[in-house]
Amino acid sequence: MTEAANERGAEAETTISDGVVDLIGVLAYGELSAFDRMSEDSRTAPTLSGRAALASMAAAEIGHYARLERFLAEHGIAVEDAMKPFVAHFDAFHASTAPRSWLESLVKAYVGDGLAADLYREMANWLDQETRELVLEVLADTGHSAFAEREVAAGIAADARQRDRLALWGRRLLGEALTQAQYVVAERDGLSELIVTGSGDLSGIAGLFRRLQQGHTKRMQVLGLG
Amino acid sequence: MTEAANERGAEAETTISDGVVDLIGVLAYGELSAFDRMSEDSRTAPTLSGRAALASMAAAEIGHYARLERFLAEHGIAVEDAMKPFVAHFDAFHASTAPRSWLESLVKAYVGDGLAADLYREMANWLDQETRELVLEVLADTGHSAFAEREVAAGIAADARQRDRLALWGRRLLGEALTQAQYVVAERDGLSELIVTGSGDLSGIAGLFRRLQQGHTKRMQVLGLG
Repeated sequence: MTEAANERGAEAETTISDGVVDLIGVLAYGELSAFDRMSEDSRTAPTLSGRAALASMAAAEIGHYARLERFLAEHGIAVEDAMKPFVAHFDAFHASTAPRSWLESLVKAYVGDGLAADLYREMANWLDQETRELVLEVLADTGHSAFAEREVAAGIAADARQRDRLALWGRRLLGEALTQAQYVVAERDGLSELIVTGSGDLSGIAGLFRRLQQGHTKRMQVLGLG
Repeated sequence: MTEAANERGAEAETTISDGVVDLIGVLAYGELSAFDRMSEDSRTAPTLSGRAALASMAAAEIGHYARLERFLAEHGIAVEDAMKPFVAHFDAFHASTAPRSWLESLVKAYVGDGLAADLYREMANWLDQETRELVLEVLADTGHSAFAEREVAAGIAADARQRDRLALWGRRLLGEALTQAQYVVAERDGLSELIVTGSGDLSGIAGLFRRLQQGHTKRMQVLGLG
């Protein structure tokens, strides 16, 4: 047990494991990043209603963030401390995958949120009931997916060359996301313990990764990019 | 009565005047602009908690925006149509007053929100009860003011030269805001009618402007820049 976990024990009624703190921390920073990304995209939306729609989805992510912050606070943890280990990896992912167009940013949000949701939903099964319900609650789609599907379909219909370019883009996003996720897990003992224990063994982890890739393939097909 | 107002009459139970549509439209675009500004500022916040705090305030502005959108929809008006006449003026104001630092952006939000709130609060007195309550509700401070006061006080304490620079900045913001506000009123018949009728006469308008300037002076003093 780390020092931080010992201090937490002194402050809070129930302690949560380092792995759960990591998981909630990475979820919280994911929400804050999603807010950033959607609010930035809203500024480049081609219409005023697209702009307002994205701003509303960004605001909903902050509602999820507040839930996670409260959960951690109830267990004596500052959300900033829980998020800090993940800032650099998220930011590296975003820097290496900066969208160059409105459609690229929609595909990125769609693919990234989908991957993250699949991963967290699997992990939720390994948690106690309270934490599981929290994780499932903040994974609720803020409406971005349906919005992205409509916009991408319209964009491909208007310009067929977009299709191939966006299909390549989706493939690159998957690669970059899995790379950063592997760095994160390698660095965080609590998180990797949670994953190893939860998935059972090495073949369990391989199965998890396979399912994540299958989910990605399915999403690209839904977007018309498969 | 404009054509738009006639169409509205056919769709909705109660019609609202062109001036009220303008007022709600300008408020709605103000909320969307405030969201943009705060979400952008959140990205440059010097700390992770400052970043989360600004993101939460930005999200609260979108809550206000949704209230205004619903009110207009209940009267058969699309919020996009009501906002459209004001987009260029708001964007011109923001382009001519792009902050060059974290403290400049906080002062801008503080001064801009304060001015807007003073103006809308006066105008709320001229409205029917339902509309008045809506306007007062969406003017509720999202917590930004107290946050800005703390950050600016800390910034001035750390670097005294900042004080003079920020004081000049506040003066320039007032000038640019009043310039754009006058353009808006000159272009929108419904809005200028609302203001002339509400304030009584030309001396009433002069009094309104005087009070806006006094409110600004007071705010600059609260920030330690007066």
